[in-house]
Amino acid sequence: MSGQARGSLTVTGLGPGAAEHLTPAVVQALAQATDLIGYGPYVERFASPGTIVTKARTHTSDNGDELTRARLALTLASGGARAVVVSSGDPGVFAMAAAVFEAVEYGPPAWRALDIQVLPGITAMLAAAARVGAPLGHDFCAINLSDNLKPWSLIERRLRLAVEGDFAIALYNPRSKARPVGFARAIALLRDTCEPTRLLVFARAIATPSEHVRIVPLAEAETEMADMRTLVIVGSSATRCIERPATPPFVYTPRSAQT
Amino acid sequence: MSGQARGSLTVTGLGPGAAEHLTPAVVQALAQATDLIGYGPYVERFASPGTIVTKARTHTSDNGDELTRARLALTLASGGARAVVVSSGDPGVFAMAAAVFEAVEYGPPAWRALDIQVLPGITAMLAAAARVGAPLGHDFCAINLSDNLKPWSLIERRLRLAVEGDFAIALYNPRSKARPVGFARAIALLRDTCEPTRLLVFARAIATPSEHVRIVPLAEAETEMADMRTLVIVGSSATRCIERPATPPFVYTPRSAQT
Repeated sequence: MSGQARGSLTVTGLGPGAAEHLTPAVVQALAQATDLIGYGPYVERFASPGTIVTKARTHTSDNGDELTRARLALTLASGGARAVVVSSGDPGVFAMAAAVFEAVEYGPPAWRALDIQVLPGITAMLAAAARVGAPLGHDFCAINLSDNLKPWSLIERRLRLAVEGDFAIALYNPRSKARPVGFARAIALLRDTCEPTRLLVFARAIATPSEHVRIVPLAEAETEMADMRTLVIVGSSATRCIERPATPPFVYTPRSAQT
Repeated sequence: MSGQARGSLTVTGLGPGAAEHLTPAVVQALAQATDLIGYGPYVERFASPGTIVTKARTHTSDNGDELTRARLALTLASGGARAVVVSSGDPGVFAMAAAVFEAVEYGPPAWRALDIQVLPGITAMLAAAARVGAPLGHDFCAINLSDNLKPWSLIERRLRLAVEGDFAIALYNPRSKARPVGFARAIALLRDTCEPTRLLVFARAIATPSEHVRIVPLAEAETEMADMRTLVIVGSSATRCIERPATPPFVYTPRSAQT
């Protein structure tokens, strides 16, 4: 089948929301797609008349179903489609790219010969950091708080080591209806190991109309400040707040560190 | 002076190199700049006739001189300029944004009232990860290996804790002429603490004409594989290589983890 040689799979990152953060590489991939695969709301963003995608068939699914989505995209590409998987943020950070390669590794050998590309995007922690200043200006970690695919003990262990190393920490997927308790445990761990003035940034739905940012010291942090659309940044011990007249403060982590 | 109220400072991330990764938000800021401030090669990219920036005055400096550059940009903004600081990658990750806020905190109080914005970009580790697959698909750390602004002991401590937590690790600024030994020490630490099959990705100058990628097991890693334009990704113990016929392998870190 000659279509097979021409098929391709591109895994794209849509960035945090607004079109102003979408890279030209991703826009081009979306415009050339024959098939768009992804979580419903992401796909629908590009599938309406008047948007940049006009020709593509759309394949939407639930947010949780990454591996099925990845296999569908690979099957379509094998059949000659220019399949484009859409991910929010960056596809390589707690998103679709790893699921695609997992599907490739355990799928039919022919999938390995497909033209597969990943196009990076602005991941949530970079968008959140930029909005408040530069809280990730020194060494930092990114930890996914979801225990759907790893035991909570590992999350707790990593969080503990990240605090011990005095990294700034970006917490992805802090809390959802299906996982009501993990974030409360994370906050408890932070209270046990960090000073009460440690700065936390709750950045919700950055670069969307529902954007909401809150900057609080650990002592005032509450579980309810995070939901599934929130990215939480825990500062290092060096992270600082610059108060400003009549506007929200800046938060940044200095480039230099003491021993 | 009425100019003061209209002045602004925007800190922009140019991404990894190619224009296809430059966000529209950054392009717009560059196009509206009256003054472009940055490391020579970054500024020159946008200051030639025919590129997107036509009106801006340019202020170039050495790569090492971040704080001076930040103060110049703030001074220009105070005088009414639309000053734009250019950074490669993302300005908030080991780049200009933290220097700007440091300058604000310790500068004249009037600087706090300025209109200062950070516009995110694709940082080197995301571009590097996308090029080879999804090596940052699980929890990860970003560590700046430069000991210009922190003691080497802290770098070593963080690297050790990152390995202990089994994070994937992105190493920024692994090696330069002025810092010939640090990266060799980092490799020695990894050899002491990780299995010899641990995967390393050396991603040099991604999305530029000098792009070069190498994927090697730790046992075969050599100091000389990195220079100042290289981003190194150290896989976690779970990071895997998918061999492919006649093309470079994919590298990815599975989304799920064992205890």
